Amino acid sequence: SNEMKEYEIYFGLTLLDRRSDKRTDSKWLSKKRSHPTTVYILFSNLSPLVTSGGGIESSHQPEVKLCRLYHKDVEQYVNQTEEGTLIFLGVELQFHMNLLASCNGRVLQEDEDDGLVAWFALSVDSSAAEKFKQKHEDCYFLEPPMPALLQLPEKEAGVVAQARSVLAWHNRYRFCPTCGSATKTEEGGYKKTCLKEDCPSLQGVHNTSYPRVDPVVIMQVIHPDGNHCLLGRQKRFPSGMFTCLAGFVEPGETIEDAVRREVEEEAGVKVGHVQYVCCQPWPMPSSLMIGCLAVAVSTEIKVDTNEIEDARWFTREQVVEVLIKGNQCSFFIPPSQAIAHQLIKHWIGMNANL
Amino acid sequence: SNEMKEYEIYFGLTLLDRRSDKRTDSKWLSKKRSHPTTVYILFSNLSPLVTSGGGIESSHQPEVKLCRLYHKDVEQYVNQTEEGTLIFLGVELQFHMNLLASCNGRVLQEDEDDGLVAWFALSVDSSAAEKFKQKHEDCYFLEPPMPALLQLPEKEAGVVAQARSVLAWHNRYRFCPTCGSATKTEEGGYKKTCLKEDCPSLQGVHNTSYPRVDPVVIMQVIHPDGNHCLLGRQKRFPSGMFTCLAGFVEPGETIEDAVRREVEEEAGVKVGHVQYVCCQPWPMPSSLMIGCLAVAVSTEIKVDTNEIEDARWFTREQVVEVLIKGNQCSFFIPPSQAIAHQLIKHWIGMNANL
Ligand SMILES: Nc1ncnc2c1ncn2[C@@H]1O[C@H](COP(=O)(O)O)[C@@H](O)[C@H]1O
Ligand SMILES: Nc1ncnc2c1ncn2[C@@H]1O[C@H](COP(=O)(O)O)[C@@H](O)[C@H]1O
Repeated sequence: SNEMKEYEIYFGLTLLDRRSDKRTDSKWLSKKRSHPTTVYILFSNLSPLVTSGGGIESSHQPEVKLCRLYHKDVEQYVNQTEEGTLIFLGVELQFHMNLLASCNGRVLQEDEDDGLVAWFALSVDSSAAEKFKQKHEDCYFLEPPMPALLQLPEKEAGVVAQARSVLAWHNRYRFCPTCGSATKTEEGGYKKTCLKEDCPSLQGVHNTSYPRVDPVVIMQVIHPDGNHCLLGRQKRFPSGMFTCLAGFVEPGETIEDAVRREVEEEAGVKVGHVQYVCCQPWPMPSSLMIGCLAVAVSTEIKVDTNEIEDARWFTREQVVEVLIKGNQCSFFIPPSQAIAHQLIKHWIGMNANL
Repeated sequence: SNEMKEYEIYFGLTLLDRRSDKRTDSKWLSKKRSHPTTVYILFSNLSPLVTSGGGIESSHQPEVKLCRLYHKDVEQYVNQTEEGTLIFLGVELQFHMNLLASCNGRVLQEDEDDGLVAWFALSVDSSAAEKFKQKHEDCYFLEPPMPALLQLPEKEAGVVAQARSVLAWHNRYRFCPTCGSATKTEEGGYKKTCLKEDCPSLQGVHNTSYPRVDPVVIMQVIHPDGNHCLLGRQKRFPSGMFTCLAGFVEPGETIEDAVRREVEEEAGVKVGHVQYVCCQPWPMPSSLMIGCLAVAVSTEIKVDTNEIEDARWFTREQVVEVLIKGNQCSFFIPPSQAIAHQLIKHWIGMNANL
């Protein structure tokens, strides 16, 4: 069919409506911060506090889930913490729908509770993290985050993607890059403003004040014969793992040209036509992975060993086998939560339909 | 046809091969800096030095072109300047091809000239800018940059997109955002490293060291009836101009969800299916505009006056008329160099083919 199916991709689904309009409503935010239904998710060292999923109902069942805390659990800590480590994530989608239906468009009174269930991410230091673990015995922080994060239920992963990206920005962007001064956090954690009165960053709108999102291209490169694809591996990968090539989009570059540049740089292969397939937020720390199919117009591989360790053409049969048998093969690919896996599968599916 | 045509889009074409591998080759860079064929393009206050195109051969002829300077023209200045304002842009594509053909794969001797024509962007302060203008009487800086930049020939616009984005990053990101210390510039202008020895930004790879690219979604929203599209306007637009809605992609968000969120936030319209069409680098200062078609599933417009001033459904006939007659209509759309124009045209073309 002519219509591209839209992918439901890990880190791309969520439980929340971001309600960015509420970020500047400090009265609403402050009310929600201490509201008894408000959900707090905790982070220490950019890793979320989780609890065991309970029960091994199926092998596909997520093994862990986010630990949902309430105002009473974090009250003591929220009052001490600097504002910068508290992020407003949004309101629960499901409840929002029910409410809209039940209110039937009626305008709420000034002091009436809007019924929205707000979520906040709270980042705590290591000593507070210890105390939370002691108080909530069944909870622990997912460290290191990868591949542990991939065990979360899909929609919780999306919440973590949002929270972790914004927290990582606060972690690394503490000072004004324009003048080096301290900054203050505003708008529910989505804005940082320089505290130096005459800083040029305060004249006009500048991206220095807003969270960073790094666009990355990731591409399934198809051999001119249509029956092979190019997969590569970096030295730091688990041995035997091959995946799609990828790289950061540079300033002044299109997605399509970034794909061509990266494939030529890393593997010496020239690419012609490029087609967007789907994308995935990747919170390590804050990338937007833009997935494409890329049709090669040359076949000789020259690996740039500064960037990758190996790159090879794999036959469609090899790829089908690895998709079915997983890591029982001579090589393996990333798990289904990774966009690389989805791109590889998309290519196989696409060809099968021809 | 099933295959998406790839767009040749303003700011997306270029004259150069970036040759990022040369950024770490300081010997090569230093040789090229003083090589007589090397081209320097100058910027003052993020605006390029240009010269009149000469001759009004056709109304479609670009009116200005980049002023190409050589080492002898900038020598005095380059020797005084801090490294941060000199950016290696790449080597000329055309010559590169010829050379590859003529060398026929032969490996060059250590000291042999590789024949590559390197381009650098040089940013100068306002007093130096004055001197350059005096010395090169037919040249001037394109200020303010918009809409003046849209007069450049397409491929030169791509070079300016790259240069301006990187220079804007140097302009606003002078200090280490992690610790507030001074930084040094490396890798031909594509990397900044904190000068404080124990700064956490020096442990591992962090995006604080690399130029920023901000992904933005821009969407042609189609009415459920297929015969209307949604265009809006901001207060600061020239009066009568309407264009596609747009907004920054947030951390942890897919392109498709960013489209849905922005359309609902700005115009109160709900979007279902989203399809990527094409993208455009937009150097104001460093965005990647990701162009999509978005199919509305609701029709009532509720404008968020904090973000936009107006949004309306326009009929296909109105849009065809404005495309043909330009600003002779009751409203107008951005010029053909803007991705919004291309998205609107794409929608018209698409429907005409049905
Ligand atoms: N990276 C960013 N750079 C500039 N503005 C941003 C960024 N991210 C979010 N914003 C928001 O977008 C608004 C500007 O949008 P616009 O009017 O489209 O230029 C700002 O006032 C911010 O609230
Ligand atoms: N925004 C960015 N964040 C991190 N690395 C970047 C960025 N932009 C370019 N790079 C380069 O990409 C390399 C890391 O790529 P990777 O191995 O894919 O994580 C770094 O060593 C940098 O040279």
